[in-house]
Amino acid sequence: MTNNLDEKQMIEQLTHFWSNNLPFNKLLGLTVSKFDCNTSEVRFLWQDKLMGNPLQKTLHGGVTASALDFAGGVVVAANMIQQLEHKTPTTIQQSLSCLGTIDLRTDYLRPGRGEEFIATAHIIRSGNKVAVARMELHNEKGDHIAFGTGTYLVG
Amino acid sequence: MTNNLDEKQMIEQLTHFWSNNLPFNKLLGLTVSKFDCNTSEVRFLWQDKLMGNPLQKTLHGGVTASALDFAGGVVVAANMIQQLEHKTPTTIQQSLSCLGTIDLRTDYLRPGRGEEFIATAHIIRSGNKVAVARMELHNEKGDHIAFGTGTYLVG
Amino acid sequence: MTNNLDEKQMIEQLTHFWSNNLPFNKLLGLTVSKFDCNTSEVRFLWQDKLMGNPLQKTLHGGVTASALDFAGGVVVAANMIQQLEHKTPTTIQQSLSCLGTIDLRTDYLRPGRGEEFIATAHIIRSGNKVAVARMELHNEKGDHIAFGTGTYLVG
Amino acid sequence: MTNNLDEKQMIEQLTHFWSNNLPFNKLLGLTVSKFDCNTSEVRFLWQDKLMGNPLQKTLHGGVTASALDFAGGVVVAANMIQQLEHKTPTTIQQSLSCLGTIDLRTDYLRPGRGEEFIATAHIIRSGNKVAVARMELHNEKGDHIAFGTGTYLVG
Repeated sequence: MTNNLDEKQMIEQLTHFWSNNLPFNKLLGLTVSKFDCNTSEVRFLWQDKLMGNPLQKTLHGGVTASALDFAGGVVVAANMIQQLEHKTPTTIQQSLSCLGTIDLRTDYLRPGRGEEFIATAHIIRSGNKVAVARMELHNEKGDHIAFGTGTYLVG
Repeated sequence: MTNNLDEKQMIEQLTHFWSNNLPFNKLLGLTVSKFDCNTSEVRFLWQDKLMGNPLQKTLHGGVTASALDFAGGVVVAANMIQQLEHKTPTTIQQSLSCLGTIDLRTDYLRPGRGEEFIATAHIIRSGNKVAVARMELHNEKGDHIAFGTGTYLVG
Repeated sequence: MTNNLDEKQMIEQLTHFWSNNLPFNKLLGLTVSKFDCNTSEVRFLWQDKLMGNPLQKTLHGGVTASALDFAGGVVVAANMIQQLEHKTPTTIQQSLSCLGTIDLRTDYLRPGRGEEFIATAHIIRSGNKVAVARMELHNEKGDHIAFGTGTYLVG
Repeated sequence: MTNNLDEKQMIEQLTHFWSNNLPFNKLLGLTVSKFDCNTSEVRFLWQDKLMGNPLQKTLHGGVTASALDFAGGVVVAANMIQQLEHKTPTTIQQSLSCLGTIDLRTDYLRPGRGEEFIATAHIIRSGNKVAVARMELHNEKGDHIAFGTGTYLVG
């Protein structure tokens, strides 16, 4: 008998955890819509409370940074978990407790206008101490709103 | 007769506007505690909703980025306004409507733990098209939590 | 009669200028191999003098940053020139004299080993004051060595 | 008997190695003028070959990035060595062979004009896997030319 989770179980449990148990992500309405060990996708809907400046009716730059950081963290986490020999709830939780953002750069390309926003991330450096992810934010029309790069501590 | 605001009026009106009329800043509880044309200070209290991961009880990285971006924006705005020949509500509003973050880098130094957080910013490049500010986040004990650098469009 | 350069003349003259008249680029052996208003490519060969650490026989991180900054600058310049109404040697030179790097981020993915290195850049934000380019460095085998993002003053 | 180096010997040997055995640093004329485990200083003289654009007679942005990366690497290395239990030539060399730049951000504040340039660095995050340093470049008159932030792999 083993406690190893199969991939489907693991993805379901992580998606549920990330979308429901993290207070600030809940406040912003960020939900993980898909991920594997190389890419991730996080979505959220426009809400007036996410507005930076009411004169411009656009997302606060901090909302954009939050969504990009989260999307990067999700793909880095999935990448870490894939490298675990035994994938039990305990080893996964131990692994995730080491994960932290070291630095994050956000490039703002266009005003953050839209009804829904989609943050995507992919791994560009995968190591046993440090991982780097690149992220993008688009709205529901495909307008490219921001780019990001995050460096994460993983070991 | 002139509509030019004296400095005290201007600071009072801007502080009130920034702390009360910007929805996402209100959601996070960010308030401008002081500023001049070279430095600014933004404060906020710990709230459970600002938590990233409930296992660690620390600020979400996006909260840190939001506070640093805002502190940088405030000092850049004050610097822009100082360079206006006539400081009327109309010229100030026109000037501020041009202000936007181009890019933001956040360096996370320590877990974001504390009861109160203080983001400070100072201008390192002041131009008529682009300004750059450096920011820091400390908690009420003086622990240094994060550094940031923001490049802003000002013209 | 007009002094407007046709596109072929302009590309030839700029390529020649960038590859031959800029002392530090010459020192490093950086040559512009192609460009248009959206993308650029800069190439250089391994030379022992470009080595960072003789124990590792890899490119100095500053060589990588130099090549990425130059590739980004070339595509931003081409993009500026394309927006000029009249493209004469004088207007082009005036336009280029305004160009400057505001900030540059380099992400190092792998040790810089190879016989030839290819830096590519594309525009991600094109404005009349500020432009942003993303860059990559590969070696002749296609190994991905570094990523970069540069913000440039253009107006 | 022990092979442990005393602090004076170690500093002399490292300073000599860094200023003489690293080809690209020699090409640029970068010399380590002082360092301890918290700060470092790297100096170099103007040379025409370091020029970016002959129209402006200023440093190439890549020279600035190289000097900042090097100053950051020196202070991070000194910090790593200080944490070694036994400081022998072998343990020091092993330790330094792990050191690598993960990412580097350079903010260009003023054109790089001057006769001598001084890059200084100090540690802002010191860990057993990752260290972060902040750097500045001034000329001999004290004009502030650039800022930088570097993240380094140390473990």
